[in-house]
Amino acid sequence: MAKNNPGHFFEDFRLGQVIRHATPRTVTAGDVSLYTALYGSRFAVQSSDHFARTIGYPNAPVDDLLVFHVVFGKTVPDISLNAVANLGYANCRFLLPVYPGDTLSATSEIIGLKENSNRKTGVVYVRSTGFNASGVPVLNYVRWVMVRKRHEAAVAPGDFVPSLPNAVVAGDLGKACPPLRDTAYDCALAGSIHRFSDYAPGERIDHVDGMTVEEAEHQIATRLYQNTAKVHFNQFTEGQGRFGRRLIYGGHVISLARALSFNGIGNAFHIAGINGGRHVAPLFAGDTVFAWSQVLDRTELPNRTDVGALRLRLVATKNRPCGDFPYKTGEDYDPTVILDLDYWILMPC
Amino acid sequence: MAKNNPGHFFEDFRLGQVIRHATPRTVTAGDVSLYTALYGSRFAVQSSDHFARTIGYPNAPVDDLLVFHVVFGKTVPDISLNAVANLGYANCRFLLPVYPGDTLSATSEIIGLKENSNRKTGVVYVRSTGFNASGVPVLNYVRWVMVRKRHEAAVAPGDFVPSLPNAVVAGDLGKACPPLRDTAYDCALAGSIHRFSDYAPGERIDHVDGMTVEEAEHQIATRLYQNTAKVHFNQFTEGQGRFGRRLIYGGHVISLARALSFNGIGNAFHIAGINGGRHVAPLFAGDTVFAWSQVLDRTELPNRTDVGALRLRLVATKNRPCGDFPYKTGEDYDPTVILDLDYWILMPC
Amino acid sequence: MAKNNPGHFFEDFRLGQVIRHATPRTVTAGDVSLYTALYGSRFAVQSSDHFARTIGYPNAPVDDLLVFHVVFGKTVPDISLNAVANLGYANCRFLLPVYPGDTLSATSEIIGLKENSNRKTGVVYVRSTGFNASGVPVLNYVRWVMVRKRHEAAVAPGDFVPSLPNAVVAGDLGKACPPLRDTAYDCALAGSIHRFSDYAPGERIDHVDGMTVEEAEHQIATRLYQNTAKVHFNQFTEGQGRFGRRLIYGGHVISLARALSFNGIGNAFHIAGINGGRHVAPLFAGDTVFAWSQVLDRTELPNRTDVGALRLRLVATKNRPCGDFPYKTGEDYDPTVILDLDYWILMPC
Repeated sequence: MAKNNPGHFFEDFRLGQVIRHATPRTVTAGDVSLYTALYGSRFAVQSSDHFARTIGYPNAPVDDLLVFHVVFGKTVPDISLNAVANLGYANCRFLLPVYPGDTLSATSEIIGLKENSNRKTGVVYVRSTGFNASGVPVLNYVRWVMVRKRHEAAVAPGDFVPSLPNAVVAGDLGKACPPLRDTAYDCALAGSIHRFSDYAPGERIDHVDGMTVEEAEHQIATRLYQNTAKVHFNQFTEGQGRFGRRLIYGGHVISLARALSFNGIGNAFHIAGINGGRHVAPLFAGDTVFAWSQVLDRTELPNRTDVGALRLRLVATKNRPCGDFPYKTGEDYDPTVILDLDYWILMPC
Repeated sequence: MAKNNPGHFFEDFRLGQVIRHATPRTVTAGDVSLYTALYGSRFAVQSSDHFARTIGYPNAPVDDLLVFHVVFGKTVPDISLNAVANLGYANCRFLLPVYPGDTLSATSEIIGLKENSNRKTGVVYVRSTGFNASGVPVLNYVRWVMVRKRHEAAVAPGDFVPSLPNAVVAGDLGKACPPLRDTAYDCALAGSIHRFSDYAPGERIDHVDGMTVEEAEHQIATRLYQNTAKVHFNQFTEGQGRFGRRLIYGGHVISLARALSFNGIGNAFHIAGINGGRHVAPLFAGDTVFAWSQVLDRTELPNRTDVGALRLRLVATKNRPCGDFPYKTGEDYDPTVILDLDYWILMPC
Repeated sequence: MAKNNPGHFFEDFRLGQVIRHATPRTVTAGDVSLYTALYGSRFAVQSSDHFARTIGYPNAPVDDLLVFHVVFGKTVPDISLNAVANLGYANCRFLLPVYPGDTLSATSEIIGLKENSNRKTGVVYVRSTGFNASGVPVLNYVRWVMVRKRHEAAVAPGDFVPSLPNAVVAGDLGKACPPLRDTAYDCALAGSIHRFSDYAPGERIDHVDGMTVEEAEHQIATRLYQNTAKVHFNQFTEGQGRFGRRLIYGGHVISLARALSFNGIGNAFHIAGINGGRHVAPLFAGDTVFAWSQVLDRTELPNRTDVGALRLRLVATKNRPCGDFPYKTGEDYDPTVILDLDYWILMPC
């Protein structure tokens, strides 16, 4: 029996199958520093223990996307080692804050399987959950991914496309955010004077700054998440492949765009949920990432007056400033768009 | 009202204005590791908790320049986002040791304003102070920076050039260094047998080694400091600019030269003050940094016999070894010189 | 007297000489995060405090190779600053687990000296030991290195080649591994179902994945270890040298190959000893590293039933996948081979 991991192929999955993923990971202050160094994130709650304590956290929580990437990384060897493409995310909810010292592990349930008509690939829908060391869920999300079949002739393991919500509902937001102390949130110190009520649906914000990505940076990030997807690391093989280049992990783009978005939504201190997301085009080293946001919706949270939720579209482009908000022409994305993310953030009221 | 930060222009500043900067930052062991990994610093006091405790610190303090860069980074969005050039530093004093777990914040006071004759720019003089979470100052320094005007026709906001000391006086040095335990400082373990009394004014020391800088390295460093100056990160825009390249943060050069200086002044375990500094020429990725030092002065500290202060000129060059101490021809710097720093270090007596 | 360190030349060493190395280093969670980010290591014991505690450690221990590199780094300024080549390792034993917060220091004893017939260089054999802050040895190994003479005419300082064991004996393995709790080691969570008894001498395992190395990555790693060997950092000088390139620290290759080896020996959670190792050819930035392993031997440990030891050959190549196990043709290494390492790992029974 081969001892290395060939990964699962489409015909290996079963509907309802639950996979316990390997490599539990204690998240530490070292990871937090690297996250800051890789993206330049400036949200005060995650940057300062003192600021976090002032508003009601026991300590600065770990950046939500760092938690997401660590959990995502664990799923790769079991779910997407033989993936052709990561197609989308849905119904992602952050359920509990994560602090340095917490150990994360993950499981995934196969919730949908749909063979493609070419019989060479199929789409696998998984609901992945991240847990802390006490076994309490900290994160829960669905993704779907196109996976190769080992043998074209193999029988499809099922044919079910799950129904997924268009957006996380307001009642499901905010579980990972403790009640904030009244008036304790210091906007000047946080770097933005704009609170929840200052943002209106429809409003668009250019995040202005651009960030050029280097090979060493995305490799360091992706290994930090213990994400083993081959396309990010192996120039020998990728040099002979579709793009001739190493492909940058899509989550790296999300974190870059999120960090850039501080310049305009600096009080969006917590990602409460991700409604959907699409990696519209690949990013390569040497490209410069820009971003803009649009407010899609605004909602109060049940029984909370401390924070409100904004639903935002976060669009990232490559090598294209976003002063005129590049997005789509008809159904087609502008060729510079690389990310179209629909998510909920919390902001102090 | 635009929600992104356009930065301040010259005419926005007022003499006496005090600005509280955003993004408090808890410095951690993760930041210390990254600092070591970015520069290869080997000063024993900052490298070893055990060594630091032996001589009288409660723990290894955070490298002085890491503290400087974190505080500096906070000032950028308010002071120098529209800067043309960072012109100089003066009267920088380290006032209290910083330890992992301390949260740093910063304020700046506008202490001088002088419009340039072209009316397109002006020089802003600021005194910036870094504080720990108890509100106690840890660092205090003056810098001056050339800032663009928004409108050439705008009236200059003042016309005052502050008088700045040529050097920090001996009585102001050493506040961030606890009394050292007699004979506890182990020179062999620290990596140099040369103590305070072994250095003589006029003496020049070649630091021998060279360090080549990569784009990923200076970007990782500068983001670690949450420094948002656009010129360091955005190849798309800089590629069309003056140099066609991303400019490396000047503080990165100071840290590189300081780390190289270990080879010759290995017991210079603490930077007590910076008298002045000039970034003579820009550094770009791919360049190799070399450095040499000259002892400018030597002074005992009032009421202390444990440590003495050496005033040093630290010169960094690019792509030019420093065995013959390249500096100036007449008034003109050697074209390879990139940094001319005048600072005080402490050394055990 | 010159204050910078010229390093020792061959004629400076004496048989029996003991050198106390500089720069004690507190290893922290920050170093652990960087190590993960640089290599993508996934061994559960080092990745998760919770996993480590479950099986009997007080916390996740620091990766064995991180300990090795930190200790090795300390020896460079005294032993190999004027080295032409690092020739080999032998009799390396890990003696005590190292945890974040431990401070490491090192000494070396000169155990052999042999001038080369050209009289320009000689081989220095050293036994280096790493200690924690309590002075307890954590690591002990021999290496030999070809060092330049300062003066060709200088008399050789000795002529003795030590006798070195071919392999660490079973009784010397496992001192740094606490007794594991029966049945507590969770193979699924660790990422491999293959235990000690599943591996047979002679068996070969392709580790499949490839990792491309960037200049920034190996420089960041090598500085993290405070390794000052000039060839890794100075493109200005190396550009004019033998390869025209910066040479990647051999230990970086060992760590890359070890991390790749997870895919096939995922339960090899501890390096118990290194029998010998050879850097067959240099690695440069831009190259992609692949690896394969062969089981050379298998032994139970005296008085232990919790873990057994596998002796493995770990071969790394550059720009050459290892599906057909490239190694030697007759006496000659395949030109793609860069590392040939013979070491012992522990695996749960």
